[in-house]
Amino acid sequence: MLELKGIGASAGIAIAKAYRLEEPDLSVEKKAVTNSEAEIERFAQAVENSKKELEVIKAHALKELGQDKADIFSAHLLVLSDPELLNPVKEKISSESVNAEFALRETADMFVSMFESMDNEYMKERAADIRDVTKRVIGHLLGVEIPNPSLISEQVIIVSEDLTPSDTAQLNREFVKGFTTDIGGRTSHSAIMARSLEIPAVVGTKKATQEIENGKLVIVDGISGEVIVDPSEDAIAEYKAKNDKFLEQKAEWAKLVNEPTVTTDGQHVELAANIGTPADVKGVLENGGEAVGLYRTEFLYMGRDQLPTEEEQFDAYKSVLEQMEGKPVVVRTLDIGGDKELPYLHLPKEMNPFLGFRAIRLCLEEQDIFKTQLRALLRASTYGNLRIMFPMIATVNEFKEAKSLLLEVKETLLNEGHKVSDDIQIGIMVEIPSTAVLADQFAKEVDFFSIGTNDLIQYTMAADRMNERVSYLYQPYNPAILRLITLVIEAAHKEGKWVGMCGEMAGDEVAIPILLGLGLDEFSMSATSILPARTQISKLSKAEAESFKEKILSMSSTEEVVSFVKETFNV
Amino acid sequence: MLELKGIGASAGIAIAKAYRLEEPDLSVEKKAVTNSEAEIERFAQAVENSKKELEVIKAHALKELGQDKADIFSAHLLVLSDPELLNPVKEKISSESVNAEFALRETADMFVSMFESMDNEYMKERAADIRDVTKRVIGHLLGVEIPNPSLISEQVIIVSEDLTPSDTAQLNREFVKGFTTDIGGRTSHSAIMARSLEIPAVVGTKKATQEIENGKLVIVDGISGEVIVDPSEDAIAEYKAKNDKFLEQKAEWAKLVNEPTVTTDGQHVELAANIGTPADVKGVLENGGEAVGLYRTEFLYMGRDQLPTEEEQFDAYKSVLEQMEGKPVVVRTLDIGGDKELPYLHLPKEMNPFLGFRAIRLCLEEQDIFKTQLRALLRASTYGNLRIMFPMIATVNEFKEAKSLLLEVKETLLNEGHKVSDDIQIGIMVEIPSTAVLADQFAKEVDFFSIGTNDLIQYTMAADRMNERVSYLYQPYNPAILRLITLVIEAAHKEGKWVGMCGEMAGDEVAIPILLGLGLDEFSMSATSILPARTQISKLSKAEAESFKEKILSMSSTEEVVSFVKETFNV
Repeated sequence: MLELKGIGASAGIAIAKAYRLEEPDLSVEKKAVTNSEAEIERFAQAVENSKKELEVIKAHALKELGQDKADIFSAHLLVLSDPELLNPVKEKISSESVNAEFALRETADMFVSMFESMDNEYMKERAADIRDVTKRVIGHLLGVEIPNPSLISEQVIIVSEDLTPSDTAQLNREFVKGFTTDIGGRTSHSAIMARSLEIPAVVGTKKATQEIENGKLVIVDGISGEVIVDPSEDAIAEYKAKNDKFLEQKAEWAKLVNEPTVTTDGQHVELAANIGTPADVKGVLENGGEAVGLYRTEFLYMGRDQLPTEEEQFDAYKSVLEQMEGKPVVVRTLDIGGDKELPYLHLPKEMNPFLGFRAIRLCLEEQDIFKTQLRALLRASTYGNLRIMFPMIATVNEFKEAKSLLLEVKETLLNEGHKVSDDIQIGIMVEIPSTAVLADQFAKEVDFFSIGTNDLIQYTMAADRMNERVSYLYQPYNPAILRLITLVIEAAHKEGKWVGMCGEMAGDEVAIPILLGLGLDEFSMSATSILPARTQISKLSKAEAESFKEKILSMSSTEEVVSFVKETFNV
Repeated sequence: MLELKGIGASAGIAIAKAYRLEEPDLSVEKKAVTNSEAEIERFAQAVENSKKELEVIKAHALKELGQDKADIFSAHLLVLSDPELLNPVKEKISSESVNAEFALRETADMFVSMFESMDNEYMKERAADIRDVTKRVIGHLLGVEIPNPSLISEQVIIVSEDLTPSDTAQLNREFVKGFTTDIGGRTSHSAIMARSLEIPAVVGTKKATQEIENGKLVIVDGISGEVIVDPSEDAIAEYKAKNDKFLEQKAEWAKLVNEPTVTTDGQHVELAANIGTPADVKGVLENGGEAVGLYRTEFLYMGRDQLPTEEEQFDAYKSVLEQMEGKPVVVRTLDIGGDKELPYLHLPKEMNPFLGFRAIRLCLEEQDIFKTQLRALLRASTYGNLRIMFPMIATVNEFKEAKSLLLEVKETLLNEGHKVSDDIQIGIMVEIPSTAVLADQFAKEVDFFSIGTNDLIQYTMAADRMNERVSYLYQPYNPAILRLITLVIEAAHKEGKWVGMCGEMAGDEVAIPILLGLGLDEFSMSATSILPARTQISKLSKAEAESFKEKILSMSSTEEVVSFVKETFNV
């Protein structure tokens, strides 16, 4: 029996035989070619064949997994139509008289390492796309078959270095009970697909392929992130019991789908979800979300080569509002810059992008971009309960300026004969320390606050949340952070306004009792966190949580807060 | 008459004829050479001749300007001895069979553009050094004489695109009455040297060389940053009167050199100076500094290729303490990282260096480097009134850890038989929002606080202070900043501790009445700002300043604060 530790990427426990999904040998050699034109034609043919194959996989994914996942293969198809990738390969073939495999490998490696070095999640995903597509095309060029996990016909746990989106989409849920990989994290493609397939998964074990032989019995615990190879009878029994408990818990959570979120002393709080696209609304409703607390509109702007039109945006906003059927939808206006780049805007490179020209700062200067979004939002406003919030507001003047642009756009739309709702709340993200400190002044101007803890923590602690060397300073429970949150909540309530939170913290079981005690009105989180959070809150007393407020706020360290909360609230 | 607007780099007014210091034609052509060895020898000879010339200029600078400025030429001499620059040139000459001028130009351009692209003040200065040195060597190679401003024999105002350190060092104070340049800022070499020479200067006019002909009468107003070309009689009279007033004011300031800083209602505050090297202490004493409020030790570590030894550091700290003759000296431990890199530490490139692994974060991990500094400091402690502060403290635990290392080092030193003062105050920089928010907890642990406004403002507003696109958010007078400062001062006073400030803000005439009213105990600034600040404070009533505290703290914008202060205190 051997234990491996990785990252639990999709909850649940699976016990089955290992099926090693091995990488085919796709190594390429450099060869001289005499007829470059014929070689370019051979390359073009391999690209065409790969496209056809991808269309099939995409259709399979759409049927089994939904639009969202099928979109991944649309992205791959786009890569295979991108002259920025294809032309350099063709040029290399002809200028260096080399074989297509080699020219493609070299060109793709160059793009992959360039994108990966960017320290930017979006570009890293593009690197993964290119890597995946390149494999497929090289397979065609070499005549090597890419393994097809859809042929599996007995219950297995897939063991592999990584799972590409193509691999994952081909998994047959009937037989594939779980999977484990050497690399990847909670937000890698494979992890996201595992959650969507509801297959238990542990990623990033570093050595699953090294330690697990084909056919060995394996337990994958996607809750704790453990992988047990060759388990003892006792271990099997233990994990079966753990799985039963997990299924029970899921059943308990499911009962609350249509319930409000109420504490033992009868206080209601709102549990909302963070979404990125209209397709995400389905998951919000299935998980009992009472609202959309954060609609990140930047995904509309990313992964393309020009700005989305007013109509495209209008359709997206309308779709979300309609699907939510009158429940509140808080839309955050464009938050681009920082770790999210839009290549087609040609923004200058910054030394510290997180402290740079991003979000509302950019929108107030590039007013055409901003106004197009505001037009689309206001036009969609009559289809549901729209709330608009501006990101990265640092000064009261910035808010006033953004709001006056919004009113100006509304005026124009009304003059043009469009209908616009008269009941749109206008709020701000509180993610910059100055805004939290001055919340009393902001509270006079805004309709609501939504605290963005991811950024608020990194600025308050002066520690880049993506930089591992200072990750010990990313402290959600630092009393300084809790005091700033308190300032915001107290200032808002004094003016009769509500406060939400849409950072990772809002769904965390240690944070929930604290935030309840501080008086937070709305918690917005990943859809899948809503039911566990509702279950937790329904067992808490708001009065009790409040009674610890002063004590927690006068603590001097994160460690002190966390150990107190864990002990007091048994989390 | 024509007015140009630039940046006042050195106070005072000068009226004289323009002397255009034009760039000699140093353009080089690529030529094939047959005898590479002879060409390398010709290059080596030009380097030697440039070195000899630099030794002469350096000696002149030492005599006229002091050690500090002479050090610039030591840096140039180092560049001319640097195999990292010289070897690539020699290799290029031999591998490409090209002429030395061309090989040097290409190599130097490569280094210059690499260093300049780094967005790092230190590396940009290195780029300027290389550019300056390259000119000199190419001059020798081409047989072109580099102009020599020391030959000027009538009263003039120098007009040039930029002034290199070599140019500035050759200026003859008897005849050169002022200067104006197209490029540069308040912290460029030329500006620093102008202040040191006490020659009025306006830099960064963008078009001085374009607009000013040789021999035209020019007024340079280094106070307002104006340059008047071909002034009218009225203008001449007006500026002469302004200059008289400035000289009067200087005379008034000078009277206060040996006076304490006392408000009209008898409250004493301490005016201290920020220094970078032991040589700066002279200026502190000449300007009546009551203490060193910030000794930036990182200059000891920069511009070299290895860490300074304990002895080198000990000598520097001892020298500062001895020169200050028992007046307090607050030494900040190593604050490297962010915009200050040490190439020889080989730190990984970070996406947001200002939010990264720097200062105390680095010192707590690289404990050998930190302990060497602490040893040097503690050994020097018996030579004066030493205070030690740690930079970039974000959590109480970081302070406790740093302090316990200090006590451990002290114990070791005592065991080794060294003497260590028993009266060393230990404090922290408050430059991270979390630390300001939690100041009451820190106040129980530290002996004093020093507020570093440059960083505190950039983190609180989430705006890189070096990024022009967000410079409008660098708001010292934002009420959020003033509230954080107030939190720190009130928390400290409650525990009987003192609070200083060592950012740019401490010497600003708008900030001074506010900070006095908030209860700041120590103001640390550039030495040359001390006497104007003392003059200003001696005319203020602390009680009156305090009476506006609540009003200012409840304002909602920078603009509101600034206009209120300007009106109320007539600044």
